[in-house]
Amino acid sequence: MEKMKLKMIYSDLKPDIEIIENELEKALYSTSHVLNDASLHLLRAGGKRIRPLFVLMSAKFGHYNIDRMKYAAVPLELIHMGSLVHDDVIDHSDMRRGRPTVRSQWNNRVAMHTGNFIFGRAIQYVSQIKDPKAHQILARTMVEICNGEVIQIEDKFRLNQNLKDYFRRIKRKTALLIESSCEVGAVVANVDPAVTMRLKRFGYYVGMSYQIVDDVLDFVSTDKQLGKPAGSDLLQGNITLPILLMKDHPKIIQFIERASKGIVTEEERLEMLQIVRNSDSIQEALKVSDQYLAKAMKEVEQLPEHPTKKKLRDIALFIGKRKF
Amino acid sequence: MEKMKLKMIYSDLKPDIEIIENELEKALYSTSHVLNDASLHLLRAGGKRIRPLFVLMSAKFGHYNIDRMKYAAVPLELIHMGSLVHDDVIDHSDMRRGRPTVRSQWNNRVAMHTGNFIFGRAIQYVSQIKDPKAHQILARTMVEICNGEVIQIEDKFRLNQNLKDYFRRIKRKTALLIESSCEVGAVVANVDPAVTMRLKRFGYYVGMSYQIVDDVLDFVSTDKQLGKPAGSDLLQGNITLPILLMKDHPKIIQFIERASKGIVTEEERLEMLQIVRNSDSIQEALKVSDQYLAKAMKEVEQLPEHPTKKKLRDIALFIGKRKF
Repeated sequence: MEKMKLKMIYSDLKPDIEIIENELEKALYSTSHVLNDASLHLLRAGGKRIRPLFVLMSAKFGHYNIDRMKYAAVPLELIHMGSLVHDDVIDHSDMRRGRPTVRSQWNNRVAMHTGNFIFGRAIQYVSQIKDPKAHQILARTMVEICNGEVIQIEDKFRLNQNLKDYFRRIKRKTALLIESSCEVGAVVANVDPAVTMRLKRFGYYVGMSYQIVDDVLDFVSTDKQLGKPAGSDLLQGNITLPILLMKDHPKIIQFIERASKGIVTEEERLEMLQIVRNSDSIQEALKVSDQYLAKAMKEVEQLPEHPTKKKLRDIALFIGKRKF
Repeated sequence: MEKMKLKMIYSDLKPDIEIIENELEKALYSTSHVLNDASLHLLRAGGKRIRPLFVLMSAKFGHYNIDRMKYAAVPLELIHMGSLVHDDVIDHSDMRRGRPTVRSQWNNRVAMHTGNFIFGRAIQYVSQIKDPKAHQILARTMVEICNGEVIQIEDKFRLNQNLKDYFRRIKRKTALLIESSCEVGAVVANVDPAVTMRLKRFGYYVGMSYQIVDDVLDFVSTDKQLGKPAGSDLLQGNITLPILLMKDHPKIIQFIERASKGIVTEEERLEMLQIVRNSDSIQEALKVSDQYLAKAMKEVEQLPEHPTKKKLRDIALFIGKRKF
């Protein structure tokens, strides 16, 4: 249903998103049967294709040509897909989006190479674009995402961290790839530099809001909606915004200590969820998300008049207000 | 000692290889302490830096400028390093080159991201080069290496394979990256296209010889020289040239079947080694390697007169005739 709503927002881009979808399928073609099957398995598992959407919408403010833009939109989705496969390897995840993961359907070895293959294809696509700027943005993004992933490991279970640490992490985890989608889209479509900067910042703010909502949903959604036990983030040591806003709570401190030793019982998990849900920090966290959303909207206001402005606003709202 | 010999071959390139070494250290700098430490740990573990060497030697046939060439030489070594870390993750290897691997010193999660970070840095370096040709070659190489890795998995323990399957695998596993080192070096130094083609083919032939010798050494070297039990390739199901040349031998067929079930005893491994060592197939395999070496030499002969020609010959001989 959520996906339906998203489709309504970008209705006029639908034919182009279909072109991207076909192109993704082409991009994942490999002479190795296993690689081919594993990649298509991933592709068919779906996904909202939000990153290509941001690429295309940003490009609308310049010289929009789908035959050119696909070389920017496809790699952005591929980078996202590649990191999901690798995440599943290290998290030993067996299910994603309700389907078996590549590592569970095949094995870790295949999943590792599938991820690398998808990254390689992403680079092959970008290398079709003449402007070295696009390559530089994407290469830097890939490096920063890895940096972020490792900082996230370093910060695990660490209670002496502040909001700055958290924002630094989610910037690299999520905001950067959406920011880069907007920037690359604009650069490839030769959008005016000042407008490009606005689109880039818009992407950043939307991305920050997106991740904060994600982190809140991990506490307030049902296990079924999440497809995994609620509170999994904290169980794994990821200290997200709602927790940072109540990190002096003795029960939370105790929970984190027990989680770091891997000795949390199901009862304790449910108790922790109750405490977090009944605290102010869920609302406080959503307020921070709203502040980012407001900043995103402000950037949109100052964009030149264009029918796409309304769509950017709608998609930012969709992302910031989603329920799961 | 082998490394000493190699250093004598490229003595006049020594200052430039040192520049590359420093640049590799810079390339691996990260704001994440863990990522920084893990990458430097890898760098300090050494390696022959054969790929940068091929980049630089090829560039000698054109407009050689080390400040420009480093953007080609560094990524080639980085791609090699990144794949080693990832290999250690999926092979659960704890030691490489006599030192603990990143996954054993830290963990699989860190190793996975370290590999991705190194690939990202590789792309960041190439993106400094204006010519999109260089990007395209490297992107294609990365994709083909992954293809090769997965085909290797598909071909494991498979007895109904022929020499063509083997050559296809080692091409992607080894020859392609050496071929690309030569090609990218030549492209970035604006070497004449016909000469570039020769250098590329030279790299391919040397790479094929390199991997065949590697596959032979896995049977004839001591466990100590290899740093792992001799015959490991076959134990893991990799059917290499010496085995393909005697794959109808009933004892070998039996061994592969038992290896595929993971029930090979130490006695059986030693017996298998005896059989392979006493057969003709070691010499036959080395003959095939020599044929590739001869083809490499033929390409060198037809290169324009240049002091680097002798070095290319020396390095090809060094690679083809090495004892471990």
